[in-house]
Amino acid sequence: MFTPYEERKTEVPFASSEYFSFAARSSFLGCPARPMNDLGDAGVVILGAPFDIGTTYRAGARFGPAAIRNADYGAMDGYRPHLPTGIDPFETLGVVDIGDVMVTPADMERSIEEIADTVAHVAEAGKVPIILGGDHTITWPNAMGIARTHGFGEFALIHFDAHADTGFLQRGSLVGHGTPMRRLIESGAVPGHRFVQIGLRGYWPEPDVMEWGREQKMRTFLMSQIVDEGLDKVVDDAVDYAIGGGAKGVFISVDIDVVDPGLAPGTGTPEPGGLNSREILDTIRRLAKDLNVLGGDIVEVSPPYDGPGEQTAYLANRVVLEMLNGMAERKTSAG
Amino acid sequence: MFTPYEERKTEVPFASSEYFSFAARSSFLGCPARPMNDLGDAGVVILGAPFDIGTTYRAGARFGPAAIRNADYGAMDGYRPHLPTGIDPFETLGVVDIGDVMVTPADMERSIEEIADTVAHVAEAGKVPIILGGDHTITWPNAMGIARTHGFGEFALIHFDAHADTGFLQRGSLVGHGTPMRRLIESGAVPGHRFVQIGLRGYWPEPDVMEWGREQKMRTFLMSQIVDEGLDKVVDDAVDYAIGGGAKGVFISVDIDVVDPGLAPGTGTPEPGGLNSREILDTIRRLAKDLNVLGGDIVEVSPPYDGPGEQTAYLANRVVLEMLNGMAERKTSAG
Amino acid sequence: MFTPYEERKTEVPFASSEYFSFAARSSFLGCPARPMNDLGDAGVVILGAPFDIGTTYRAGARFGPAAIRNADYGAMDGYRPHLPTGIDPFETLGVVDIGDVMVTPADMERSIEEIADTVAHVAEAGKVPIILGGDHTITWPNAMGIARTHGFGEFALIHFDAHADTGFLQRGSLVGHGTPMRRLIESGAVPGHRFVQIGLRGYWPEPDVMEWGREQKMRTFLMSQIVDEGLDKVVDDAVDYAIGGGAKGVFISVDIDVVDPGLAPGTGTPEPGGLNSREILDTIRRLAKDLNVLGGDIVEVSPPYDGPGEQTAYLANRVVLEMLNGMAERKTSAG
Amino acid sequence: MFTPYEERKTEVPFASSEYFSFAARSSFLGCPARPMNDLGDAGVVILGAPFDIGTTYRAGARFGPAAIRNADYGAMDGYRPHLPTGIDPFETLGVVDIGDVMVTPADMERSIEEIADTVAHVAEAGKVPIILGGDHTITWPNAMGIARTHGFGEFALIHFDAHADTGFLQRGSLVGHGTPMRRLIESGAVPGHRFVQIGLRGYWPEPDVMEWGREQKMRTFLMSQIVDEGLDKVVDDAVDYAIGGGAKGVFISVDIDVVDPGLAPGTGTPEPGGLNSREILDTIRRLAKDLNVLGGDIVEVSPPYDGPGEQTAYLANRVVLEMLNGMAERKTSAG
Amino acid sequence: MFTPYEERKTEVPFASSEYFSFAARSSFLGCPARPMNDLGDAGVVILGAPFDIGTTYRAGARFGPAAIRNADYGAMDGYRPHLPTGIDPFETLGVVDIGDVMVTPADMERSIEEIADTVAHVAEAGKVPIILGGDHTITWPNAMGIARTHGFGEFALIHFDAHADTGFLQRGSLVGHGTPMRRLIESGAVPGHRFVQIGLRGYWPEPDVMEWGREQKMRTFLMSQIVDEGLDKVVDDAVDYAIGGGAKGVFISVDIDVVDPGLAPGTGTPEPGGLNSREILDTIRRLAKDLNVLGGDIVEVSPPYDGPGEQTAYLANRVVLEMLNGMAERKTSAG
Amino acid sequence: MFTPYEERKTEVPFASSEYFSFAARSSFLGCPARPMNDLGDAGVVILGAPFDIGTTYRAGARFGPAAIRNADYGAMDGYRPHLPTGIDPFETLGVVDIGDVMVTPADMERSIEEIADTVAHVAEAGKVPIILGGDHTITWPNAMGIARTHGFGEFALIHFDAHADTGFLQRGSLVGHGTPMRRLIESGAVPGHRFVQIGLRGYWPEPDVMEWGREQKMRTFLMSQIVDEGLDKVVDDAVDYAIGGGAKGVFISVDIDVVDPGLAPGTGTPEPGGLNSREILDTIRRLAKDLNVLGGDIVEVSPPYDGPGEQTAYLANRVVLEMLNGMAERKTSAG
Repeated sequence: MFTPYEERKTEVPFASSEYFSFAARSSFLGCPARPMNDLGDAGVVILGAPFDIGTTYRAGARFGPAAIRNADYGAMDGYRPHLPTGIDPFETLGVVDIGDVMVTPADMERSIEEIADTVAHVAEAGKVPIILGGDHTITWPNAMGIARTHGFGEFALIHFDAHADTGFLQRGSLVGHGTPMRRLIESGAVPGHRFVQIGLRGYWPEPDVMEWGREQKMRTFLMSQIVDEGLDKVVDDAVDYAIGGGAKGVFISVDIDVVDPGLAPGTGTPEPGGLNSREILDTIRRLAKDLNVLGGDIVEVSPPYDGPGEQTAYLANRVVLEMLNGMAERKTSAG
Repeated sequence: MFTPYEERKTEVPFASSEYFSFAARSSFLGCPARPMNDLGDAGVVILGAPFDIGTTYRAGARFGPAAIRNADYGAMDGYRPHLPTGIDPFETLGVVDIGDVMVTPADMERSIEEIADTVAHVAEAGKVPIILGGDHTITWPNAMGIARTHGFGEFALIHFDAHADTGFLQRGSLVGHGTPMRRLIESGAVPGHRFVQIGLRGYWPEPDVMEWGREQKMRTFLMSQIVDEGLDKVVDDAVDYAIGGGAKGVFISVDIDVVDPGLAPGTGTPEPGGLNSREILDTIRRLAKDLNVLGGDIVEVSPPYDGPGEQTAYLANRVVLEMLNGMAERKTSAG
Repeated sequence: MFTPYEERKTEVPFASSEYFSFAARSSFLGCPARPMNDLGDAGVVILGAPFDIGTTYRAGARFGPAAIRNADYGAMDGYRPHLPTGIDPFETLGVVDIGDVMVTPADMERSIEEIADTVAHVAEAGKVPIILGGDHTITWPNAMGIARTHGFGEFALIHFDAHADTGFLQRGSLVGHGTPMRRLIESGAVPGHRFVQIGLRGYWPEPDVMEWGREQKMRTFLMSQIVDEGLDKVVDDAVDYAIGGGAKGVFISVDIDVVDPGLAPGTGTPEPGGLNSREILDTIRRLAKDLNVLGGDIVEVSPPYDGPGEQTAYLANRVVLEMLNGMAERKTSAG
Repeated sequence: MFTPYEERKTEVPFASSEYFSFAARSSFLGCPARPMNDLGDAGVVILGAPFDIGTTYRAGARFGPAAIRNADYGAMDGYRPHLPTGIDPFETLGVVDIGDVMVTPADMERSIEEIADTVAHVAEAGKVPIILGGDHTITWPNAMGIARTHGFGEFALIHFDAHADTGFLQRGSLVGHGTPMRRLIESGAVPGHRFVQIGLRGYWPEPDVMEWGREQKMRTFLMSQIVDEGLDKVVDDAVDYAIGGGAKGVFISVDIDVVDPGLAPGTGTPEPGGLNSREILDTIRRLAKDLNVLGGDIVEVSPPYDGPGEQTAYLANRVVLEMLNGMAERKTSAG
Repeated sequence: MFTPYEERKTEVPFASSEYFSFAARSSFLGCPARPMNDLGDAGVVILGAPFDIGTTYRAGARFGPAAIRNADYGAMDGYRPHLPTGIDPFETLGVVDIGDVMVTPADMERSIEEIADTVAHVAEAGKVPIILGGDHTITWPNAMGIARTHGFGEFALIHFDAHADTGFLQRGSLVGHGTPMRRLIESGAVPGHRFVQIGLRGYWPEPDVMEWGREQKMRTFLMSQIVDEGLDKVVDDAVDYAIGGGAKGVFISVDIDVVDPGLAPGTGTPEPGGLNSREILDTIRRLAKDLNVLGGDIVEVSPPYDGPGEQTAYLANRVVLEMLNGMAERKTSAG
Repeated sequence: MFTPYEERKTEVPFASSEYFSFAARSSFLGCPARPMNDLGDAGVVILGAPFDIGTTYRAGARFGPAAIRNADYGAMDGYRPHLPTGIDPFETLGVVDIGDVMVTPADMERSIEEIADTVAHVAEAGKVPIILGGDHTITWPNAMGIARTHGFGEFALIHFDAHADTGFLQRGSLVGHGTPMRRLIESGAVPGHRFVQIGLRGYWPEPDVMEWGREQKMRTFLMSQIVDEGLDKVVDDAVDYAIGGGAKGVFISVDIDVVDPGLAPGTGTPEPGGLNSREILDTIRRLAKDLNVLGGDIVEVSPPYDGPGEQTAYLANRVVLEMLNGMAERKTSAG
């Protein structure tokens, strides 16, 4: 029988995304879609957080999850064997997609809470959540969700970004894409000495904010330092720092604006002079292989500012894939 | 258990679209997705035909089905009550989406045959197929599918277009988006005297081709005639002509280029001077209300040539909705 | 002496817009910029409300005020004599621009309140505020600001839109661009019988919401009615309705999506089948000439979705100009 | 033998366009290309004037000739039979293309002179020149070239535009796209009483400039008048006015911005509220059929501001085609 | 006398391109255009193959030949002296353009055959053909044409690409842009041990396909290997491999997607993480200087997905120019 | 009192830009705006030169000054502390913006003269002028203005560009964006031996022009040389050369097309194969720190050809910021 609208409406699962307008309507590269309450035996769970009301400039990252999931020319069959290794991370890890968290633009707090709850739910089920943003505000609930499961202060956060995102207030608000890292430090979810930031540049935040970060023992690698020392050395240091002091694992947060906006223009707060595509892909794969990834996110992809070729969404899609590939190699080599 | 790729591959249903790269990945406005072999009690079946290798100029209509299905700002919940009537055509008619027909660019003949088979399958199940194109080549298999079910010569075809599409050959080939109407006449599926064409203009086809159409007793309304006589009168005539001589019903084919390219720029062969948006929407609704619609298609939406606001895809989406609304009003008033 | 940053920061006037990132950085067509606390003898005050967190789909209207102010090819000299009349509304009325209201995306309530306060401040000074949006949420505080000054229930609201915007809740929130008209009716600021809506079409809101509007005695003109009766007759009726029952004046709210998205694609929730450019311009001018305008707004211009030619922003700019021209003609003819 | 560069350079014909960078590289719709000094028995000669240094705002019209020539989806075979009549104007009239006049951005005067010389050369050979612009500055040399051949004051100029283009000075210069009509009147080439202007609107030029035009007995139809009286009546009047007083023929100048920028966004100084596509096409065809066309131009198409669908260039291409069609019908009916 | 259309139609030369709609309408950078049957004493012959029906995702490469030929800001005079050497390759080599091969989208086989025939015709005349694509399918007929002249198995193919293009079937078809290299190996035209592939990355093709390539003794350099070893070393190896075993010369095939899509977004199947612009240009020039080039192609440029600045078409144009420059240096130094 | 238009018109300051149509309407990143005749104690003066009539291909650089000033996501508050140093160059140097020089497209000579006069005025006041272009023609008046103050032949010019810009004539004119460097040498303002050019590549100008440059003792670094020797070494040489022979200081001219068009597509004459973003930013900062900067310009940003993300304008904005930062570091370290 044809199910009428009213009846179907009651079937909406918790983290489903079909019932609000800017949610993504398909799964990441066609991997299996699962409801929140039946994650199966997957090892990795993809979810979207189409949240962009924390942005201080260009909006549009609400369409990021949809764009990232579909930015590919291959069949949407959940099968992507890695050329250098032949490993298909989808099969090796078991990857499912639970759709987008229900975001309410008019209710920032509730949205933040729902993201944190969903991430925690996934983590508690023993899976690794990978969250597709959305603006960078979401790393606050993302890492909070991980902390609720794996313990406050128990994991490191490796943060790729042009910006430190450690502001105290953002136009009078504690919440926004310029403040998540401070919120995480303040809450104890990720203490400063477990933070590694890579790719910072430009003219923000102010010196006193940077000074605060140093006091918190955040480890910060500016682009100028990467140019001077070489990326390999910086990543070596990052790995050492991240696993130092007995961290259980890492959360990897990639703001696409860590990449040069000439290469990744579809973003809200572009800062020229960043990494190139090859560098971010290789670095993410290496980190996911060398470290125990507890979760990750890719944020600040804003499709209305991307080129007609959608190069930014494609790059973000590959950042996720390389993270999966690194994790799959780690799992494979671990036997 | 997590199903590996190889196993899942065997589950591909006949008309599914998840396994090729440019297929649409969601259903029309979120209406229920159904497999080919289980259409349920729906009255209308949406399907996509992402076929654009029949185009003589700009390609890109292969992305038409995906764009048309998603061109909306509302929740993807398969619920769209019409403002003037309050009728929700999805519930009134029962509308499901079976995804995209498997098109093989390198094998035009097989693709054509699969489209015809799928349309016939739907029609034979007693449902009304509405096909999202794709270029206008597909009206040939679309109407052939209808003819196999409802009888050759037994229904009228009302054709909105800037172009007559009655060419004999297209760069040496019988198949293409410039020839479908001739193929239909030649095959007897839709004889010339059951053809109504509305909106023709410009400088193609050649006078002898137009003469051939007149010999076939095709009824043709040029834009210049619409300007002179008024659209209302032309549609009155079209209705009379379409139901004349005992036709069982009609197939409505809408080439989006019947609309002025200033309003609907995302198309392959734009011809300035067409209808406006309001005119096409009202006309389609009226026809679907006044006539017995056996099937319909909307073709030639080419997303890479659309504006950033996607105005062409939105208009095509509403052409489908107004067709559904007219059918729903007809059904409702019929009690 | 060169004033350092810290000192200059203290000089920020109330409604200034230079100190947040997506504020407009120039005045409407170069008319004089004035601070909030020194409006001078201007008769009309332009202000921006770069608020787009109430939108349910595409964002971007935060860049509307900047785009509308600059959408012109002439010198930015605050001089625009009307071709048919020779009247320069800037000089006739005295028009100044006080910049953008300080909007805090993360604090919807405070933003709403600041908009209402600013509008009320302008109205209380005896000037006519014209607000450049932003999404349609702002008509709630806009008209509230007018009501605080001119009295609750004392003026009519003529509302051009594809959508009724009378939703009860928007994803659980009372505030958003789908609900402002209901909030105004509920608050008594503009009772239902003082509402005229023109241009509605499509498939939203649901029948019970439309029924609620009828119960409130809202006067609603669907596009289908405009097609049937002609725009002139509809506007005649609207004028009669608006001045009926002793209203002191009108607030005119123009959602750019009342215009066909083929012509005005740069908007968040495009609904095909609307008015054309000439119709909206002539109608606005006529209304502003025939009625006592207490305030007005133009909303939902979203520049990232506009074409490279910025046609939507240009049209919105002219909507404001024609409103000013109508008001200037009224003033001139009043002697 | 392969001809080296130095030798080929000497073969550049007068009006050839292959040797400067922004010249068009093909002929109008593939009609025969001819050198200036060998026009053959063609009746109509197309030429480009890629001149845009007279524009006061957006540039880009230098790419207009190339875009207009190629804005078509058909074979470039110089064959375009008109659907309503079956007449192919290329064959009926004999149409050739002599390429682009050599424009020197750094030398405005010389460029103007070369355009005038080329047009005069064509006219003196008894052919009808149709010039593809370029900004509207070129109508000055275009009509001067006609006047040198057919006599000063001996022909009418029908001018479609949003703007009167009768400014006295343009930022201190006598030459530019805001002044050509005044230069023509002052020079006696086209006296005011032989000028008909259709489609004016907006807020420019100033009242004293419009007054000057009235003193010159220019016949001006504002868009507001067209709305009130209907386009048919206005065109009737225009025809009467143009052939009144014994004019030998007409020059038709079409600024694409006479059309609504919603439909034709690719232009430099867009003024909302114009004609629609159908209206300009039908009007141009009618005028070219009813009047003796001595020359014509289509100007202000600026490709960088057009949409991805190139709708503005397509429309301009059809304006030329309809002008040719009207001329061909006139010739055919004249026997 | 003016030649009517019917007569002119008979003059179409074999490989002319003026008579179908998406053919290029000018020669490469203005070099001399020649008919197929009169190639003169040129050493290099440019031709276009606007074939894109082999693509599995985005189409549009049919407009590649036109875009590549015109992607320049200089005069179209067939003169481009190389800055580092002062050599003008057009004069040194003698370069002519024979236009586009007549492609029939509806007849893939015939199109493939015509491309192969044309390339063979050029090669047999002792000239070096350089083919502008078009999708990568064309490398199959391109290299077949070379093989018919210079011998099956007698030359090496250096292949720059993100993808191996060695698929067995493409949606059931043997022909397409994912299979040309397998077809070449199977046919013996280019045996596996004469293949060098540079730049591969991503997640396609499947491991068994890569294994098949290794069995064929294809030499494959992944991007990861290039990062590890340095491009210089990889190119050294490629040169050694290519001239090993007595090959007569090389065919160089450049898929523009070997370059990072951040830099070259206008392509159909973008794979992030590729070479940069400087690297591809220098490498192509070096190879063309160090090796005996028998032919070359540049493929997969899809203009509708390029940015407004046309950066991808410009880069492809320079790939051709650097190939010509390398060949010219080789010829010059050979005395 | 409200000041009417006529009175306000008389208040136009010398270098103000509010009164012509394509002038920028805000100051660089919100730094204080000052009138020409009251520069205060600022050390650096920003000005715009929206001049693009010297370009030989794409226009649009007239919108460069507006785009560059606003290409940022931060508040427009004239405060940008540098992340690596914490220094805010706005406060350290004192930076003001005097708006755009009044450019008259129709009068090239007068425009050139006004630019030179304005630059000289600023320099004579003891400030460092930084000019935002506009096309590269303006470096002629820019450096002339410096020479009038600091002496002919007394300073070096470091020129970043894909093109040498040393042409003798440009389509018959001495003035244009291909000739400024020759004009400067000929005039003695900057003798050849004080010229350093970095980043040249491609196929222009001709060998004899390059030879002339060598005779003038210009120091030229082609991209090929940068690839071979490394950028560090080239910049070392450039610094040595620039300060050799007792030059008082340097003028730094940055044509944005020195950067690869894949990264900076919004420019008029893109030449693939350039520097990357990081390289230009670091190099400019280093030069401004190591050398005594007397003035600088950034030219050839053409917004209509930029991507939707405006990556080119952002990069140009940072080129200015890094120049300021280098100068600020120099001043700070000088104590």
